[in-house]
Amino acid sequence: MDNLSKYAYTIVKVGLNVQPGQQVIIQAPVTTLPLVRLVAIEAYKAGASLVTPLLSDESITLARFTNIQDESYLDTASDWLENGIAEAFGNRAARLVILGNNPTIFKDINSDLISRASRSASKAKKQLYGLITGGKSNWSIVSYATPEWASQVFPELPVDQAVDKLWNAIYSATRIFEDNPIQAWELHNETLAQKCRYLNDMDFSKLHITNDLGTDIYIGLADGHIWKGGAKKTDTGIQNNSNMPTEEVFTTPHRSQVNGVVKSTKPLYYNGNKIDKITASFHDGKANIYAEEGNDIIQKMITEDENACRLGEIALVPHSSPISASGIIFQETLYDENASCHIAFGTSYSQCISHKENEMPGELLARGANKSSIHVDWMIGNESTNVDGIDKNGNIIPLMRKGEWC
Amino acid sequence: MDNLSKYAYTIVKVGLNVQPGQQVIIQAPVTTLPLVRLVAIEAYKAGASLVTPLLSDESITLARFTNIQDESYLDTASDWLENGIAEAFGNRAARLVILGNNPTIFKDINSDLISRASRSASKAKKQLYGLITGGKSNWSIVSYATPEWASQVFPELPVDQAVDKLWNAIYSATRIFEDNPIQAWELHNETLAQKCRYLNDMDFSKLHITNDLGTDIYIGLADGHIWKGGAKKTDTGIQNNSNMPTEEVFTTPHRSQVNGVVKSTKPLYYNGNKIDKITASFHDGKANIYAEEGNDIIQKMITEDENACRLGEIALVPHSSPISASGIIFQETLYDENASCHIAFGTSYSQCISHKENEMPGELLARGANKSSIHVDWMIGNESTNVDGIDKNGNIIPLMRKGEWC
Repeated sequence: MDNLSKYAYTIVKVGLNVQPGQQVIIQAPVTTLPLVRLVAIEAYKAGASLVTPLLSDESITLARFTNIQDESYLDTASDWLENGIAEAFGNRAARLVILGNNPTIFKDINSDLISRASRSASKAKKQLYGLITGGKSNWSIVSYATPEWASQVFPELPVDQAVDKLWNAIYSATRIFEDNPIQAWELHNETLAQKCRYLNDMDFSKLHITNDLGTDIYIGLADGHIWKGGAKKTDTGIQNNSNMPTEEVFTTPHRSQVNGVVKSTKPLYYNGNKIDKITASFHDGKANIYAEEGNDIIQKMITEDENACRLGEIALVPHSSPISASGIIFQETLYDENASCHIAFGTSYSQCISHKENEMPGELLARGANKSSIHVDWMIGNESTNVDGIDKNGNIIPLMRKGEWC
Repeated sequence: MDNLSKYAYTIVKVGLNVQPGQQVIIQAPVTTLPLVRLVAIEAYKAGASLVTPLLSDESITLARFTNIQDESYLDTASDWLENGIAEAFGNRAARLVILGNNPTIFKDINSDLISRASRSASKAKKQLYGLITGGKSNWSIVSYATPEWASQVFPELPVDQAVDKLWNAIYSATRIFEDNPIQAWELHNETLAQKCRYLNDMDFSKLHITNDLGTDIYIGLADGHIWKGGAKKTDTGIQNNSNMPTEEVFTTPHRSQVNGVVKSTKPLYYNGNKIDKITASFHDGKANIYAEEGNDIIQKMITEDENACRLGEIALVPHSSPISASGIIFQETLYDENASCHIAFGTSYSQCISHKENEMPGELLARGANKSSIHVDWMIGNESTNVDGIDKNGNIIPLMRKGEWC
């Protein structure tokens, strides 16, 4: 079996865990078709009833911005399609997203236009996002080494060598080079699960994160926060890995109990734009931000709505994680976030906070879980990162030193 | 402007007639991407708010049949997607279908499996078909010369020459080689409209069709039948051409007033299977059928439901039409039906019969309009075809002699 076939098999078994009789939706750029085809075959072998590919084309997406006759048309999104996907997902269809776009495709497009289109696209996905965060069905996000992406990551290499190098990094990070990738993922999931059990038992009230770049921040954790990482289960008990790769354990920060300063340690690629060297100062959860590169983009991002400037996720990743060790800046959050401790502006994950049977409206917000139309991760960990957990009695327990778990 | 760009421009202006602010959905095999991209650009230039490509891949469709674990899974269709498309179409999105699949892709698959999957796929499209036949929005079907299709049509040629030859035939039939294709289509639409006006004024009660192959059939026309052809208008008045090319004028036969024998004059390609040398004997609208090739396929087709063996369309096309003159068997109904007079088993078109304000359930059926889950055209015209119109007083008016309009 060649590596791409092994990758497709692992995606179907570990990422999605396709169930007999289940529909599968694959959302992917058309440039990733060789993987889409292999995943479809493996999904059918695993018992899928119907695999529906939804193939996007970034040149058509780009053509919209360069040919649109009236900017207000950007408020139009494909609600009908997103509603359809939500209908399928709500009816237990599995959903695979394959990433592989050119990270800088929109670099010459006015960022106001991108924001306007992203905003309407996000709104159209609202129902689907609700079902996803509610654990309604099994889903996964994976990546594909397209020439366009590989050339951005390794601009110094001829394109075919860049593609090979990026595939090697992808296969390595997703454990495809292991003799038995499925077993390797089981082991890895168990390691992450152990870490979550420990953090959940400790039930820290806040984390204190520092590093040599000047980061010194207290991140309060939401009341009833839950640490998650690795495999998760849908509400009907199907275990799957929603991110391949994944190295993080993550939970819900308290939206109004974050204080201090935090610096980015890797660039953030957002809607095809690079944002770099971010400094964020938090006061009672609300951030003031400055980025040396792409400042206008991040300002727009955190003003998308009133809670976009508050945190919805804190994730811990050891600096020695295989993705970090590769030394590659993938320019793709799925990879870069798994190389580093990170935080996310915007909405929190429903599965990362405890729920009561008759939850009152606003109760989760009061317990610290943020709600916003965005969720954007950015990287704050490096080789000098120290993390302490502070419990309800004020005891300080070292969690990470010099970027590694204690 | 190269020919493919002229084709895309003509599709957007004549086929769809895209309106400012309108969404456009393009359903197409991934192999037709160069045209999808050009149509998207032209649609945006014409004022489209959002163009959504829905790209299918026939190797994935085929993989379903070769890897499915349980045949009952073929009863599953992508209802969620068809419902979404119907939602968009109902909200006035334009819809373009690009054909270009390999006509014999399913030749090694058991036809029972194909039928089973087609049946569930048709059911899922029911809402959409209702909106289409109701004239809810502008839509069009066009073709693209893929290597797979071209090699089937011209098996004696090297593939690149076959593709060139097929493109030439497509461009010729869709008037792309004219100096001004838009004007040429206006002229052509007016010619077809004149023919319809004459036939509607005559309000024949039946047609008598004969030819040298042994066809001798009386086809009663539904009470209140309307002849249509060329451009049509949506219920909001947008003029568009739903088929490019189109050479036919067509109307609603009476579902229980067809008597005699009719022979096919060209092979029919149905779900990737060839059906040839069909003889159909009608008695009070109901057909008994035998095909020398693909008989099992056509038997299954006309037993899909109780009305699948009755006619839903009769169309007249002169033998000298440019597509017929090309001498090519395209193995694709969009083209082959426009080379020849044809009839269709199955459901009739809502726009080809008059409607009353408070239509009673069953009224259209009583007036002769057939209702079925299928609509399959097959070709019955040739150079010896004679057609007479018979009016309510029994007067016989010659309409076609030796395949040409009188």
